[in-house]
Formats: sequence, C-alpha cells, structure tokens
Amino acid sequence: MRPRTVDLNCDLGEGYGAYRSGDDAALIAIVSSANIACGYHAGDAHTMRASVAACVERGVAIGAHPGLPDRLGFGRREMQVTAQEVEDFVLHQAGALQAFARAAGSRVAHVKPHGALYHMASRREELAEAVVRAAKALDERIAIVGPGGSALLRAAEAHGLRAIAEGFADRAYLADGSLAPRSMPGAVLDDPERARKQALDMLERGCVATADGAVAAVKAQTICVHGDTPGAATFAAALRRGLEDAGYAIGAR
Amino acid sequence: MRPRTVDLNCDLGEGYGAYRSGDDAALIAIVSSANIACGYHAGDAHTMRASVAACVERGVAIGAHPGLPDRLGFGRREMQVTAQEVEDFVLHQAGALQAFARAAGSRVAHVKPHGALYHMASRREELAEAVVRAAKALDERIAIVGPGGSALLRAAEAHGLRAIAEGFADRAYLADGSLAPRSMPGAVLDDPERARKQALDMLERGCVATADGAVAAVKAQTICVHGDTPGAATFAAALRRGLEDAGYAIGAR
Amino acid sequence: MRPRTVDLNCDLGEGYGAYRSGDDAALIAIVSSANIACGYHAGDAHTMRASVAACVERGVAIGAHPGLPDRLGFGRREMQVTAQEVEDFVLHQAGALQAFARAAGSRVAHVKPHGALYHMASRREELAEAVVRAAKALDERIAIVGPGGSALLRAAEAHGLRAIAEGFADRAYLADGSLAPRSMPGAVLDDPERARKQALDMLERGCVATADGAVAAVKAQTICVHGDTPGAATFAAALRRGLEDAGYAIGAR
Amino acid sequence: MRPRTVDLNCDLGEGYGAYRSGDDAALIAIVSSANIACGYHAGDAHTMRASVAACVERGVAIGAHPGLPDRLGFGRREMQVTAQEVEDFVLHQAGALQAFARAAGSRVAHVKPHGALYHMASRREELAEAVVRAAKALDERIAIVGPGGSALLRAAEAHGLRAIAEGFADRAYLADGSLAPRSMPGAVLDDPERARKQALDMLERGCVATADGAVAAVKAQTICVHGDTPGAATFAAALRRGLEDAGYAIGAR
Repeated sequence: MRPRTVDLNCDLGEGYGAYRSGDDAALIAIVSSANIACGYHAGDAHTMRASVAACVERGVAIGAHPGLPDRLGFGRREMQVTAQEVEDFVLHQAGALQAFARAAGSRVAHVKPHGALYHMASRREELAEAVVRAAKALDERIAIVGPGGSALLRAAEAHGLRAIAEGFADRAYLADGSLAPRSMPGAVLDDPERARKQALDMLERGCVATADGAVAAVKAQTICVHGDTPGAATFAAALRRGLEDAGYAIGAR
Repeated sequence: MRPRTVDLNCDLGEGYGAYRSGDDAALIAIVSSANIACGYHAGDAHTMRASVAACVERGVAIGAHPGLPDRLGFGRREMQVTAQEVEDFVLHQAGALQAFARAAGSRVAHVKPHGALYHMASRREELAEAVVRAAKALDERIAIVGPGGSALLRAAEAHGLRAIAEGFADRAYLADGSLAPRSMPGAVLDDPERARKQALDMLERGCVATADGAVAAVKAQTICVHGDTPGAATFAAALRRGLEDAGYAIGAR
Repeated sequence: MRPRTVDLNCDLGEGYGAYRSGDDAALIAIVSSANIACGYHAGDAHTMRASVAACVERGVAIGAHPGLPDRLGFGRREMQVTAQEVEDFVLHQAGALQAFARAAGSRVAHVKPHGALYHMASRREELAEAVVRAAKALDERIAIVGPGGSALLRAAEAHGLRAIAEGFADRAYLADGSLAPRSMPGAVLDDPERARKQALDMLERGCVATADGAVAAVKAQTICVHGDTPGAATFAAALRRGLEDAGYAIGAR
Repeated sequence: MRPRTVDLNCDLGEGYGAYRSGDDAALIAIVSSANIACGYHAGDAHTMRASVAACVERGVAIGAHPGLPDRLGFGRREMQVTAQEVEDFVLHQAGALQAFARAAGSRVAHVKPHGALYHMASRREELAEAVVRAAKALDERIAIVGPGGSALLRAAEAHGLRAIAEGFADRAYLADGSLAPRSMPGAVLDDPERARKQALDMLERGCVATADGAVAAVKAQTICVHGDTPGAATFAAALRRGLEDAGYAIGAR
C-alpha cells in the first residue's frame, strides 16, 4: 500500500547580511518544503541564492515567504497597507525568488506569507485576494499555504490555485481554531510525543484537543516546524520520526 | 527604403515611496527603451509595477536598471563588492522586475547597470562577467547595454548575449572615448543641434569630436537621454525630432 | 503696544539622499519654527545638518520631527508599536538632531511627531507619554507641538513641558475638532483669505467654522504651513502677510 | 603602589531588530569600555538604549561605534565617501547615542569607528579629520580610539582631543605594525597565554613579535576583545585574568 504523505515545512533563509537566524542546515534535512525569506522582513540576495541551492540539493520544495517591508520589526508588526501595496510587495518578493529558483533549475512551488502579513491575509479578504493575485501572476501552478478555513485559502480556491492548509504541531489551539497566544500557559507544546499526536489529529481527523479540553476543527496538509529556538531542530526531527513511525512518508504536496 | 533605426533609452521609475525623480511621463513618450530601477539604488515594488505598465502601454522595451545596495547614495558611490555579490544583486533586481513584466504580459528585454555599478562593470572583467551571468540566468534572449568597447559588452558577447553599445548625445567625450567629467567646462552639451550631430556621428561614423578638438572612437546603437534636470525632457524631444528628421526611425533594437 | 505673536511652523528637510521634498528654501523665509525630519520617515545626516544650518542662519526655531521607521511609506502608515519602541524611536531621532543643533550653536526647541505617529500619539495616552518621556529626557526645556486638547498635549503638561497647540489654516475641520479627511470635497482650503480668517478664528476665538456650517473648538498657538505642493509656498507667504496685516508678529513661542 | 591600569574594550549592541550579534552579556562583565553600534552598520534605537543601560549598570565607559551606512555589508565594505559625508555620518550616530547616554545619566566618552570606516579614517587624513571634527562637536572632552600612529590619532591630537592607541592581543601583526590579514596562517592567536604576552608587550614595550619573527612597533593603551565567535568571551575572560595576574587593574582611560 502506498504510504500516506505529509508535508513538513519550515521557514528558511531568514538571516540578513552578517546576521543568522534559525538552524537552516539542520532544518533542511528534516522538512519537505521550505519558505524562503525574500528580502523584506528578512533575507537578502545572497541568502536567497544559498537557500535555493540547499533546497535543490536536498529535493526540498521551494516556497516564497514574503513579509511586510519592516526589517526592524522582522515583519511581525501589522502595518496599514492597501491591497494594491500587498499585491506589489508579494510579486516583488516572490518574483525575485523565482529568478534564483529558475537559475538553479527549479521553480517557486508555493507562497506562504510571513508574520503579520500571514495573519492579515488570513483574516481580511481584500488582502488575501492581493496575495493570491500576485502568486497567480507569477505562476498559475503555484500553491498557497495558510491556515485551514482562512480567507487566504478561500481566495486561493476561488482563483483556481491549490490551497494547502497548515497546522502547528507544537502550538496549542483555542476552541475557535486559532492559535493560543504565546503568553498563555501551555501555549507551546514542548513534548514531541504530544506534538506528534496533535499532528496526527490534524492530519487524520481534522481536529485537535484545545488547551481547555474542548475540540477544535483544525485541518492540516502541511505541518510547520521551527528552527529558531535552542532544541527546535531536535524537536522537529523527533516529530518527523514520529510521523514516519505512524506510517507517513514526508513529502511536498 | 526601410529607414535606419536608432534606439533611445532613458532611466525610469527612479523614485521611492513618496519621492519622485525625473519626468517619467514626458520621457516615456520620447524613448523606445526604458531602464527601470529595481529597488536597490532607487525604485520600489509600486514604481516597478507602474513603470512596467507605462512601458507596455507605450510599446517601450522594458529593461532592468540594477544598482548597488545604496539608496542613500543613489547607487553613485563605488563600494567594495565581490563578483558573487554583484551576480546576486543583479539577479535579485532583474528577477523582481521580470515578475512585474511577465504579470503585464511582457518581459525584461535588456539589462543596463546603474551608476557606480555601470562604471565598475565597464572596467572590471570579473564584475562584467557577474552582471552577464545574472542576466543570462534570467533569460538567454536578454541584451546587455553598456559603453562600446567595455568589459561589460565583451563579457556579453563571450556569453552569447546581444551587446548594445550606448552613447551619450549630451555629454562631451575625451580622446580615450570616456566621458568628460561633469566638473570640466563644456562637459554637458546643452545645444540640441550639437547633441543631434554628436548622436549622428556615433551612429554613422562610430566616432565623435572631443572637447579638445580631437576625434574619439565612440560607437553607439542606443542613445541615452535624461529627464532629471529642468528642461531635460524638452531637450530629449528635440533630439528625437532631429534624429527623425535625419531619416531615423526610433525603436528598440 | 507690543504686537501679538503667532508662530508659523513647517516641516523641513524631508528629502533623502538624492531626493528632494518640499520647497525648503522658500518655506524657511516664511516660518518661525521648523520641524526637521530625523532619518526615519525622511531625512538623513546631510539634510539634518543643512536644515539646522538654514534655521540658524534665519533665526528659525529648530524642532525635531520624528516619524515611524517606514521610509517607504513616508511615515504615513500606522504600525503596531509599543510605547517603549516609540520612546526609543523619538529619543534616537531627536537626539541625533540635537547633536547637529548643538554643533551649530543652537538646540532643539520642540518636538512635533510626524504623520502616523502624530495621529497615534494624539489619540493614545501610552504613546503620548512615550513621546513626552523621550523629549523630556533630551531637554527639560523642550516644548511639545500637537493638536489642541490631544492626549499628546495633556501628557506634555502632566510632565511639566510646554504644550503648544497646532492648527491648520488650510484644512477644513469637522464638528468634533478633527480634520476633515482629504477625500472630502472642500477639505483643503485653497483661498488664502479664507485660510487667514480660519487662522485668526483659531488664534483669537479658539474655534473655527466647520465644513457643514457648525462651529468647532480649535485652539491654536502655532499654525502649520506646507511646502510640498505646487503653489504651497506662495500660499504660505500670503497667509503670513495676512496675519501681519492683522497686527501679528510672526515668531516662535 | 598604585597598580598600572589597562583598558579592555569590546564592540557592543551590534544586533538589529530580531537579530543578535556577539555575546553582549558575557563581554560587558569583562571589559572597561564598550563601543556601541549606532544604527548604521548595526544597532537600532532599542539596542542602543539596552547597551547604554548595561554599561551604566556595570560602570563600563560608553563609546560610540559609528560605521558606514551599509547594514547589508555590516560596515565592512569600503565606500566612496567624502569627508563631509563622514563628518555627518559620525555626528548623526554619536549624537543619537549621546541622547541615550544622557537619558541614562551618563555620556559618550569615546568614539571608535567601525570596520571599513576605522580603516579608512586610520589611513586617510581628510577622513580622520572628519571623524575628529564630528566627535569634538559632540563633546570637547571626548576621546578618539584608533591604531597607534594612525592618521586618526594624529588628527585627534591636532584638535586637542585625547588619542587612545588600540592594540589587538589576539591578532598577529606584520613588520609595518599593521594586522596580518585573516587569510594568513597564524593571523589569529588562539592561545590566551600568547595573547596575554602580546598584550603586555604592547603595553610595556610598545612593540610586538611579528608573524615572521621580526619586531614591530605597536603601542597600546586599550586592548580590543571580541565576542562574536564561539569561545571568544571565554578567551577574553582568560586574557583579563592574565593581565590582572600581571599586576594590571582593568579600567577605562
């Protein structure tokens, strides 16, 4: 029987100049898809080239990870932006990455917005539309990664693009399917076994147990892993093994 | 008899955010090729989209105008950069512009480096190679615009790309074929008739009269016009009419 | 009898690198106070030095005009920022300007936030406090310029700093004392005589006629004039003459 | 008998936004002077405030560490800049830091340029003059830190500022007193005992043994230690103990 497949994705190439962010070398060996920073919230021409090369070497799917133009705030601060601005921001970033991908004989397979832009485009329809228009203008085969049930994925489907629902194995959810804020006790799951169980729940049942004992509908086709805290890559590797032990192949969708 | 054709090119989209630079609306009606700033020395995602749209509407050829990462210095200051850095800088910038061009149903037809990068890549072989490698990685049909006889055009030819020699109708040349520095009296020709004559000399005889009465070999297939000083667009329009009166059609090469 | 005095203020030094913004040379001859951009939303080290020099030469009071760290958006977009971030942003910017002012034998006399920061600090107490703490840390003699009745001026008074109420002679007000949005017909007064009347109403009666015929309480001790649109400096000069004809001396408070 | 005193200095606050650079917490406990990045090559308003606070808490002398406006290149690339530009760059950066220092009840005690600016100002008289003019405009009591015998220290002395010669305990020198390039085998001394010996040679004899067995004149009043490589802080702590064992007190000059 052909194994079921799950995608593991991580953010990559989020350094800048002399600065490094995240354990890229460890993560690239664990995931099947990478979201590469494109120079707005993080990343530069050199990190883009190097990240694309690492993906090609490892057979990891290349994704664009566009953010707001706020390097000082690492793209985490919401800004007042128009839909036209967002469309231009995303096309600028994903287009630049596409050039590096093509130069390496590959292509940008998906777009996953970063930080504040991820949240804004998940919530607000006109910004979701803007992200999708830019991505589609780049390549009609491109996929959009975002929270299941979000405005972002609805817009992708409305435009005929593949919509890939993303879940977090290591973060607690609230009853409405949103992430528990990091300030809440228990918001971050640091037990790999519990994370594995949550991942399997999202993959197989489309729901997770919430922080307060309820059940929330959370569907996932790709699981996000992190590499920017000590021990994060080890945790991600344990999660990968746990999913493989449960009969899953790890692969881009 | 089919008229001879000459290309007129100008820099376009060199504003940033709320800032404007040059009379883009006037220039786009005069030239056949535009060199669009790509966000390093000038330009942003919005100016790139708008400039591409103006070119498509007018049938003007779209070119990338990559510069050094020095917005404060408008890309005019030389910086210590490696060939790998230059290659990444150019691919980043031209790639982003390519995305806007493709989204508008067009493509980047040529690359002309800006300011200090133009001069560095004209002089230094390893930087010329870097520019050409990036351009070729973007599109094998792309042309390279630079000074006739420069390292940049030699590198283009060595890599099988079209090399387009650029001349300046409104700047005096020295005996070695280089531009007279702006600080020299008479360095800028402000008589449109004299500029027209110099353009025709470059186009038809491959030489110009120098500031000190000698003759320098300066071949040109494209003539650069400027729009960033008062009266510049009027001057450029007069030059265009002069060339048309001399039997030339204005068109991209 | 000693003439009554009114301050005219304008934004100054809002260029960046090769870019210019506003007719600084014309404005400096009209106003008594200048708000100098400090490198975040606009301005750089060179424009700061030059603007300070022009103020010293003309006897114009030097003010800091700190903005959000968003050069692309010219500081006009609201961003999610904490009070601590705002305090650091303002101290950074005003402190840098103070160095240029001291080097020229002068000092920063007031702080007037720019754009989105002006609006945010007028509305939100914790951000108003942050601006005032930074300004006071720089110099206890410093004044704060903002809308009359705003959180910003209340915070200034609570900290023992001078609070200077600012009014706009060329913008229509709503009944609640806020500015009519630019999108509303008649939002911009382009008749200098009407602007003069509105200025006198604010100065002498503490109220203005609103767009819809009502009266709003708007007190002003300083009147803002603009120089970034064609004809703006001419308008400002006419307003100045109008106020002088009405018996006012123009001078910093 | 009063112990002889030697200053240990380190670069501090060279992160940016979410990025960190160097083990600031470890270094601040070892050194007597800190060179704080001021927002051009590295650093931002928040790192400046935090670094100043750490210095005040520890009794470490606060210095400005101004660099070229090249964050992508971490201020390590030489750029074509004029003396006026350098003067403005330094005053902008040191002035901003002064505001944070004053707000914390302290002041900027010295200026040590960073990276390419350090080298350019050590070599070229007009740039050395520019750095010194800016520093003196900020505070006449300020000291200048640079290589012994450099144009930078000569300019400081010519302007009546204290000139503090800096030596490197962990880098090999060439016969002309310059640092051996990092690419040369043995350029970095990784034996703390050898570094201690070199430091004592610079402090007491004004000379060091060079890589090729000769002796070079290298005087030092302050020794630079680094924290940006693994083990660097441990190395620096060992050097400090070695100097204390040799009878030195560690203190700012």
